[in-house]
Amino acid sequence: MRYDFGSDNTAGMAPAALQALVEANTGYARAYGSDEVTARAADLIRGRLDADAEVRFVFSGTAANAIALAMLASPHEAVLAHHAAHICTDETGAPGFFGSGVGLIGLPGFSGKIDTVALHAALDEPEVGHRQPAAALSLTQSTEYGTVYTEEELRHLIEPAKLRGHRVHLDGARLANAAAAGFDLTQIARLGVDVLVFGGAKAGAHCAEAIVMFDRSLARRIDNRLKQAGQTASKTRFLSAPLLGLLESNAWEDGAAHANLMAQRLAEGIASRSAFVLAHPVEANAVFVRMPPEAHQRLNALGWACYRFDDGSVRFVCSWATDEAAVDELLEAIAAL
Amino acid sequence: MRYDFGSDNTAGMAPAALQALVEANTGYARAYGSDEVTARAADLIRGRLDADAEVRFVFSGTAANAIALAMLASPHEAVLAHHAAHICTDETGAPGFFGSGVGLIGLPGFSGKIDTVALHAALDEPEVGHRQPAAALSLTQSTEYGTVYTEEELRHLIEPAKLRGHRVHLDGARLANAAAAGFDLTQIARLGVDVLVFGGAKAGAHCAEAIVMFDRSLARRIDNRLKQAGQTASKTRFLSAPLLGLLESNAWEDGAAHANLMAQRLAEGIASRSAFVLAHPVEANAVFVRMPPEAHQRLNALGWACYRFDDGSVRFVCSWATDEAAVDELLEAIAAL
Amino acid sequence: MRYDFGSDNTAGMAPAALQALVEANTGYARAYGSDEVTARAADLIRGRLDADAEVRFVFSGTAANAIALAMLASPHEAVLAHHAAHICTDETGAPGFFGSGVGLIGLPGFSGKIDTVALHAALDEPEVGHRQPAAALSLTQSTEYGTVYTEEELRHLIEPAKLRGHRVHLDGARLANAAAAGFDLTQIARLGVDVLVFGGAKAGAHCAEAIVMFDRSLARRIDNRLKQAGQTASKTRFLSAPLLGLLESNAWEDGAAHANLMAQRLAEGIASRSAFVLAHPVEANAVFVRMPPEAHQRLNALGWACYRFDDGSVRFVCSWATDEAAVDELLEAIAAL
Amino acid sequence: MRYDFGSDNTAGMAPAALQALVEANTGYARAYGSDEVTARAADLIRGRLDADAEVRFVFSGTAANAIALAMLASPHEAVLAHHAAHICTDETGAPGFFGSGVGLIGLPGFSGKIDTVALHAALDEPEVGHRQPAAALSLTQSTEYGTVYTEEELRHLIEPAKLRGHRVHLDGARLANAAAAGFDLTQIARLGVDVLVFGGAKAGAHCAEAIVMFDRSLARRIDNRLKQAGQTASKTRFLSAPLLGLLESNAWEDGAAHANLMAQRLAEGIASRSAFVLAHPVEANAVFVRMPPEAHQRLNALGWACYRFDDGSVRFVCSWATDEAAVDELLEAIAAL
Repeated sequence: MRYDFGSDNTAGMAPAALQALVEANTGYARAYGSDEVTARAADLIRGRLDADAEVRFVFSGTAANAIALAMLASPHEAVLAHHAAHICTDETGAPGFFGSGVGLIGLPGFSGKIDTVALHAALDEPEVGHRQPAAALSLTQSTEYGTVYTEEELRHLIEPAKLRGHRVHLDGARLANAAAAGFDLTQIARLGVDVLVFGGAKAGAHCAEAIVMFDRSLARRIDNRLKQAGQTASKTRFLSAPLLGLLESNAWEDGAAHANLMAQRLAEGIASRSAFVLAHPVEANAVFVRMPPEAHQRLNALGWACYRFDDGSVRFVCSWATDEAAVDELLEAIAAL
Repeated sequence: MRYDFGSDNTAGMAPAALQALVEANTGYARAYGSDEVTARAADLIRGRLDADAEVRFVFSGTAANAIALAMLASPHEAVLAHHAAHICTDETGAPGFFGSGVGLIGLPGFSGKIDTVALHAALDEPEVGHRQPAAALSLTQSTEYGTVYTEEELRHLIEPAKLRGHRVHLDGARLANAAAAGFDLTQIARLGVDVLVFGGAKAGAHCAEAIVMFDRSLARRIDNRLKQAGQTASKTRFLSAPLLGLLESNAWEDGAAHANLMAQRLAEGIASRSAFVLAHPVEANAVFVRMPPEAHQRLNALGWACYRFDDGSVRFVCSWATDEAAVDELLEAIAAL
Repeated sequence: MRYDFGSDNTAGMAPAALQALVEANTGYARAYGSDEVTARAADLIRGRLDADAEVRFVFSGTAANAIALAMLASPHEAVLAHHAAHICTDETGAPGFFGSGVGLIGLPGFSGKIDTVALHAALDEPEVGHRQPAAALSLTQSTEYGTVYTEEELRHLIEPAKLRGHRVHLDGARLANAAAAGFDLTQIARLGVDVLVFGGAKAGAHCAEAIVMFDRSLARRIDNRLKQAGQTASKTRFLSAPLLGLLESNAWEDGAAHANLMAQRLAEGIASRSAFVLAHPVEANAVFVRMPPEAHQRLNALGWACYRFDDGSVRFVCSWATDEAAVDELLEAIAAL
Repeated sequence: MRYDFGSDNTAGMAPAALQALVEANTGYARAYGSDEVTARAADLIRGRLDADAEVRFVFSGTAANAIALAMLASPHEAVLAHHAAHICTDETGAPGFFGSGVGLIGLPGFSGKIDTVALHAALDEPEVGHRQPAAALSLTQSTEYGTVYTEEELRHLIEPAKLRGHRVHLDGARLANAAAAGFDLTQIARLGVDVLVFGGAKAGAHCAEAIVMFDRSLARRIDNRLKQAGQTASKTRFLSAPLLGLLESNAWEDGAAHANLMAQRLAEGIASRSAFVLAHPVEANAVFVRMPPEAHQRLNALGWACYRFDDGSVRFVCSWATDEAAVDELLEAIAAL
């Protein structure tokens, strides 16, 4: 089976990430996050975001998102999110587990972007004692369906939520791909995001994401919170080093730009050489294709791992590692289906 | 500051661990635990334990322990453990968090080993509705105070617990050190342990531990459980590879043997060359020294990181990386206090 | 404002319930559930169900349901239920709170009854690690929309769920109304229900429901579980006495029969004397009417409390206390809208 | 068995409480806390405390305490309390359950009162990431061992805690007994208590306590919180009425004064007529007696229910219902042991 396009998690570590990890392995270092490597990686993230913020490194995006949401909503409250957001569909209920019952309110919207009208309707819902009222809004950039919010679109979602006193979380598992698509990272803090999950794994690290708390009051006793949640790395340098390597070398952006380019190539090839239709605009590193079950199965049988999503389309994901020749091979296979 | 003896978490990755990680970084691999590297690492662990078992890799010992205990005890139940066990004193209440309120009942005993009489007394406590009755026994091998249970000692703790229907958890964060001290790993399953945490980080991996479920019924839907708990590695090969490298090369045992030897050297030096008294038998890789606060502070001021424990003694820990010359330097400093 | 038809919670205690409470107030009684009154009430419930079962009395239906579900599903699992079930829409996420993140999977179906085809589709969903797989099926009798499942209908839902190893919960907040509508209570255990919530409040008690565990293994350490969950009555006799009074006098059934009759009268009046259409078959004590917002508001303005539901219809509920003259007055008002 | 002195939960409802409940049972009332009876009861409580506060009625003291603590401390934080406090020893870990892992730090002190020096030591503990730092102080008035804090004593505990930014919870399950012993209720708010549990059950209600939130910011979305926690009474009037009756009639204080007097009579009798020694000053309604196991068993065998506590003494509790003749009978029995 070929896993090239199954997910951006099937790729390995980018060379810059691995090299930084290897380099971090010298001598002793203070444990539990107080090392030099970790400090430098956090600085680089603050730099990219042009914002002051508390930064912590954790092992998984699921944990990063769920812990962030637990900062923003109490068990008797809920989080507004796109119904197809990763937190709603792909994290086995982690927000409810880390948040001790915190609810999720799924909102509709084309191609993974929350519909503004739907958001307003949800914000206008009268509060009643027998439902979990919203306390936070969760956004994903780039979205689960491979699209990228414009600053303007984000503003139209964030502003009304903030006006109601809600906090805002941004799931940036594929933030590098959004950045490579032109999204300005320095706007995240300015738009009013309270907590950002800054993605590492899909950008070429091993398993590492950063929780970025722009509102430092949310970071109160964050080290206790992370330790209790099993997300404190004793040997933190090995968690942060790959992100340090990616950011120092710009491989974080460059790899994402390559991934996006490969996705474009794939999308254009499908549009021009096959009878299949793209399900969503291809703005980042994922290509969603409307494909009948038999075609999907045939492709799987030919050895190409790819998965059907809740909207019925089949997803192909590119990464820093995607080979142009592999794209062409896949196109060949799709064209011949 | 010199962190050589501050903890076994201050050391880096052992060469065999790093090399295996580097080697794992070739091409694509199935995500979320289904890769080849992970399968081989699990096989090696089963081999070491001479037992069939479900094995999963997680990022932190805190998570591994807390998730294991959540399998064994309900929120309205409790876990019996030595009062100085890591789960009681050093994990920020993680068992209560992952177990949604599960209780801990601290038991006394010399040098980190649960006293058999105290265990029997706890097991004989009549159950009442307004207290959390014990459902599980948690043991640590080697113990928090650097001692190693004999098989006989473990049997005298596990048997009565099992007779009451309790399940048994073994925290093996330093299992390698116990093995190097002569403890037979193949007895763990035979003694009746239900879930073992097989330590990686302190043995020379980065941050990686394995949860070993001898009772496979406990592993039901374990992948959902771990995913929800933020402990599923998308790129699992990078989590398991270092353990694979340590086990394939025997560096897991060899490094621990070296650590134990260095601890012996340190202990003997302190006994023979200083006025300080050892607080506990030195059977694994840690040396606990009775030392007045001023001496401790002087040592810190001289640049040696070391910490005071709940029993009042100061701890020095050796690892696979400990340098003989460093031991002698430290001894010099202690002798001159 | 007139609250007669706003809910079956606006009525007071039925005379038999109050009298039993008053009678229970003599002398001292053992605390925490070991009293005579409580034992007799539990016996009467077992008698009604013609089944052996562990019975406990709790203060609220929300707690009863959520605790029952926590017995049946782990945090990383989910419960299948009608999307309009009380546990899904009216309990502020209590199942997720008591179940530490347990998920709810909403199923469609006319008039509050789960659609068999939809259930089968849900049961046939392949399990994946990143979603919460179902572990239990929750049913409501009579349903949230005032309908009553036939035994046959329940069998067609319970059997396939049990075949997959799922457990079954029955929310009987309005079980008395179902019984009065002809549902045979002795079939509940035979159909395979594992835990029943036997309703008291809506049947004329104060705030009291019973958790009935047919599978006694679920009741292991139930007293610890309830105490921890804040659902143990120190003076239990005052919690159980009203249910004892209702059951000894048959007021539990008689009051429900009266409520159902009043609902019939109301439904027939609306059908014959107004232009409004009933939204659901009226089989128990609730009447749902399709009514434009202005009509609803006018009715409220006239002093009749009544609420719009998620299906867009307006609900009127009858109880043991509903007065025939009040029904006619309400009909008058509706006819004149 | 005679339960007169087993607990203050073995007594029934005081006449004023029952009468108010019976009187509340007229006609329809708004459900879920918006009724007239409940509003009046809340007013009376605010009056007693001479303070503005948000007041809610719940079913059990365990729930009231645990929910209050969940407002004051996060899962990764802890609550300071006397090690013999009800929340530590008698609520089956409810604080950890409702607080999703929140920790308890037990403090010593004579006769149930927290020792000031011990509190200061705890407050001075340096915060570390691997332990749950204190976020709140929990006090009990009157204490678990039947003593009553003076205002001065409370001030010496509350002030240093508040200086560290901690919040303060007061468990007033037996607040009436403290008030009857001279404790000025109007000082509670002034001393800086954030949340008070105002006891009803032990004072002659059925099962009803009030959560009093002096800091109204803690009451944000309290109705959602209580509903989710299974502590919202649909027919709230029946929950609040007994407290209304007790407070309107002053039976809340009078009953407690009687209970305290009976405890005095019992204590004096034991001191003068038996060889047994009192374990604690008798300042409220409980008498603790140092008594060898055989004497305790003999007393039980004679039909007097009474329990041994963690400090080894045997407890006898008086209530509003305690009969003088019964005290004398018990004294007779004790004198003859």
